[in-house]
Amino acid sequence: MSEPATAAGAQGLVTAALLIIGDEILSGRTKDKNIGYIAEYLTNIGIQLKEVRVVADEEAEIVDALNALRHRYTYVFTTGGIGPTHDDITADSVAKAFGVGIDVDERALTPMKAYFERRGVELTPARLRMARIPFGAELVENSVSIAPGFMLGNVIVMAGIPSIMQVMLDAATKYLKTGKKMLSTAVDLHRPEGEIAGMFEALQKRYPDVPMGSYPFMRDGRPGTQLVLRCTDPERLAEADSELRAELTKRGWL
Amino acid sequence: MSEPATAAGAQGLVTAALLIIGDEILSGRTKDKNIGYIAEYLTNIGIQLKEVRVVADEEAEIVDALNALRHRYTYVFTTGGIGPTHDDITADSVAKAFGVGIDVDERALTPMKAYFERRGVELTPARLRMARIPFGAELVENSVSIAPGFMLGNVIVMAGIPSIMQVMLDAATKYLKTGKKMLSTAVDLHRPEGEIAGMFEALQKRYPDVPMGSYPFMRDGRPGTQLVLRCTDPERLAEADSELRAELTKRGWL
Repeated sequence: MSEPATAAGAQGLVTAALLIIGDEILSGRTKDKNIGYIAEYLTNIGIQLKEVRVVADEEAEIVDALNALRHRYTYVFTTGGIGPTHDDITADSVAKAFGVGIDVDERALTPMKAYFERRGVELTPARLRMARIPFGAELVENSVSIAPGFMLGNVIVMAGIPSIMQVMLDAATKYLKTGKKMLSTAVDLHRPEGEIAGMFEALQKRYPDVPMGSYPFMRDGRPGTQLVLRCTDPERLAEADSELRAELTKRGWL
Repeated sequence: MSEPATAAGAQGLVTAALLIIGDEILSGRTKDKNIGYIAEYLTNIGIQLKEVRVVADEEAEIVDALNALRHRYTYVFTTGGIGPTHDDITADSVAKAFGVGIDVDERALTPMKAYFERRGVELTPARLRMARIPFGAELVENSVSIAPGFMLGNVIVMAGIPSIMQVMLDAATKYLKTGKKMLSTAVDLHRPEGEIAGMFEALQKRYPDVPMGSYPFMRDGRPGTQLVLRCTDPERLAEADSELRAELTKRGWL
């Protein structure tokens, strides 16, 4: 795989976008379970997820989103649309976005044939579609149901079913470079955001290199706030975290 | 509110995009609960959700996404980033995207003052920020915690906390025109996609005006498929559904 040249890359950061392909998510019929899983997974291996898009099963939508995202981020992960039915158009759309051809790939077909034969399952023309891989792609192994995903350039194409997507994401990591891991600390306070905002903003100004977020929550009908500090440098993070805790202790909030 | 002129509008379709603003979703720390709720809600009131994006709490990202989406769809709904802390920059970003000013709005401030006074809560400068509304916007009522959302042009700005977002979405519907409701039927089969694909594609070709989707699932380790037909015309949908059921019965699959 070539190394995508991005501004973030120059700072040791590895970034990603996630493109979810599926009418069923947009209609609300299926509730997405992949965004949270992939977001957490990438954070843990030092890849920063910067953007997510959900688009319909329409070629022009998929191609436009792929071309917008693949030049902006180190990697683009896609889920959905690689099954055997007529509405599964992800592989063709990726080939089109890259301007390459696509055909049945022996590397994909051979293990699928063996798998189907063992199970007495017919290799229908529809199932054969799942072995179509864009030219130049690496396969991404599917240990659950064999029909593979693939990686073309910096785009990693995975299934939409969560259990299959998860084994493909594991399999894809061997192709990925990972960056400095984004570390974080969090404090939960039983106070509303409006009371801690002034102190918190002043702390952010003293640590511009440690992005700080404030996330309100309601528990038993009472408002609370989670304060999150994020930094790739563990010493700097610890320093900001100590100062936050000192400020909170001083006010009797911790 | 002005009526946005879109190609979809000419066909009686009302479309929408959803823009989720939040670092916490992208890091995986918070699992999104709003996409599924909003998708289903909009489908039920005859608005077709066509795209979702999740972006970070960064002004340039938010402004770019707003400007890309608001010209493409009838409505853009946003969630997140309207609280009192320094990382809450949605209102300012919306004002910037539209090129209008923003300031404390008496329509928002008066009920917030009364609410805080009743509860003995101090009106801190941070809380005052929540009354800042872009010029020209309509307020969107928040019956849970009073600080309102707003609608500017075709953009509806809501809180990120699900319980507050949900009352705001109810409150916003009075400003919205709704379109022909997208109807759907679904059949669950205990057969893998690869076996039904040929029949299903042939049916889709006979009903090009009834989009058909096939959604694989795994239950107790066995593959199954949900077939979904969608159409705004109830008679045409019933016709396609009958034909699908006849095809399935003929093959002994139902």
